[in-house]
Amino acid sequence: MAQSQSYWASISADIEAHLERAVQIRPPHSVFEPLHHLTFAAKRTAAPALCVAACELVGGRRDQAMAAASALHLIHAAFYTHENLPLTDGPNPKPQIHHAYGPNVELLTADGMVPLAFELLARSDDDPTGEKAGRILRVMVEIGRAVGSQGAIDGRYREFLCAQSDGKEMGQVGWVDYVCEKKEGGLHACGAACGAILGGGNEEEIERLRKFGLNVGMIQGRVKGVSRNGVEMLKDMALKELEHFDSNKVEEISGLVEAKVWKKVQNK
Amino acid sequence: MAQSQSYWASISADIEAHLERAVQIRPPHSVFEPLHHLTFAAKRTAAPALCVAACELVGGRRDQAMAAASALHLIHAAFYTHENLPLTDGPNPKPQIHHAYGPNVELLTADGMVPLAFELLARSDDDPTGEKAGRILRVMVEIGRAVGSQGAIDGRYREFLCAQSDGKEMGQVGWVDYVCEKKEGGLHACGAACGAILGGGNEEEIERLRKFGLNVGMIQGRVKGVSRNGVEMLKDMALKELEHFDSNKVEEISGLVEAKVWKKVQNK
Repeated sequence: MAQSQSYWASISADIEAHLERAVQIRPPHSVFEPLHHLTFAAKRTAAPALCVAACELVGGRRDQAMAAASALHLIHAAFYTHENLPLTDGPNPKPQIHHAYGPNVELLTADGMVPLAFELLARSDDDPTGEKAGRILRVMVEIGRAVGSQGAIDGRYREFLCAQSDGKEMGQVGWVDYVCEKKEGGLHACGAACGAILGGGNEEEIERLRKFGLNVGMIQGRVKGVSRNGVEMLKDMALKELEHFDSNKVEEISGLVEAKVWKKVQNK
Repeated sequence: MAQSQSYWASISADIEAHLERAVQIRPPHSVFEPLHHLTFAAKRTAAPALCVAACELVGGRRDQAMAAASALHLIHAAFYTHENLPLTDGPNPKPQIHHAYGPNVELLTADGMVPLAFELLARSDDDPTGEKAGRILRVMVEIGRAVGSQGAIDGRYREFLCAQSDGKEMGQVGWVDYVCEKKEGGLHACGAACGAILGGGNEEEIERLRKFGLNVGMIQGRVKGVSRNGVEMLKDMALKELEHFDSNKVEEISGLVEAKVWKKVQNK
């Protein structure tokens, strides 16, 4: 457990440093300051770290996944910012988050994060043989699908419907599962698959890591309203996918099935 | 003039058809219906058409630029939707646009348009030699820069500041020019440069078409508050860049320096 925790902490630190360079405050300062602030104000999901870990698990180098990891956080941060805007047709989030800027600046700043995410990925092609370009384009399709109208946007839409009905709909486990699968599940599945693609994994490795990521995302996302049995089932399904890999290598990545491991990395 | 108008009308029709396929209504309908609506509710800029025309001018085929053209419209439509959301720190746009959906649905639907734009581009790589992949990645960097924190987002930020000061700031020509250059200017410059890149243009052709696009965008964007002399100067600067190209080929594209040509194409 301690070994796994220090592994995730080391990946997290590298992603933070990469993001810090990507959103470094420069002219025009009035635009970059909120960009920097909102990038780091958003809650960290494990999806970017999972992207890096999956890349390493299939034999890739950490730096090969760093742009994708940063891109995943930037898109999550953009959505997080927009989900917490005060809008006339509410509902306003409870508890309300601290807003360092007004709604208009938060809205347009987050609008700049998504193109930046794809720009970072596009710029990360440093391979003159052209092999990496194909992988980067494939990763962009993966991300587009995971965060688009059949992915996270669908999850946000359903979540909005539930919240608008004042929580009545949220009591139905079906809705909660659906939203969680589309949001946290989809983002983590995408992160793991992208890492495996960038690290040069084969199709089976990519699909197994995608399923591992999906289940990990469901565990991370379902903070409440889920039975102990439900979590154990998700853990079992996640770990089953790792049996395919070299057992000497899976110990570090497998720790992520414990929600508390990621929580501890974040609270350090 | 008539010849140029029919050229732009033909490009426009092809882009509309490409967009129609990209946002075709499919399950989940409740998410795709607003996506389809908001894609076509947004005002059409000439930037996507200019992308296609630039591709053809440098000797490329129309279909090589179609994904980039659609991507440019989708990002513009996303920003257009977000700029017209009613937010608590206003200002609300005048005249107010018709809202077919509530603010939350408009907000999240537009959030899905930007990843879709990049996904379309990533999917457009159909070249097994790998040559196109490099061009697509370069185009993504161009788009990221044009619509990001040093481009359209900066323009939107300044415009918001001006509007918040109740139009007082807007009287200063410097501000209007700055916003117009960052928004319409930058988008059209990007469109033209991307078309030239995708069509296989050389560096000089790319830079000349970028400048042509910048000036065309400034003409298209400055609907009011600009002197006749100002527009004539922009036209001259735009046309000067076209002198470098085969004079038999530039007639159609050069018509775009007349704001009314694009307007007529849109009103047909």
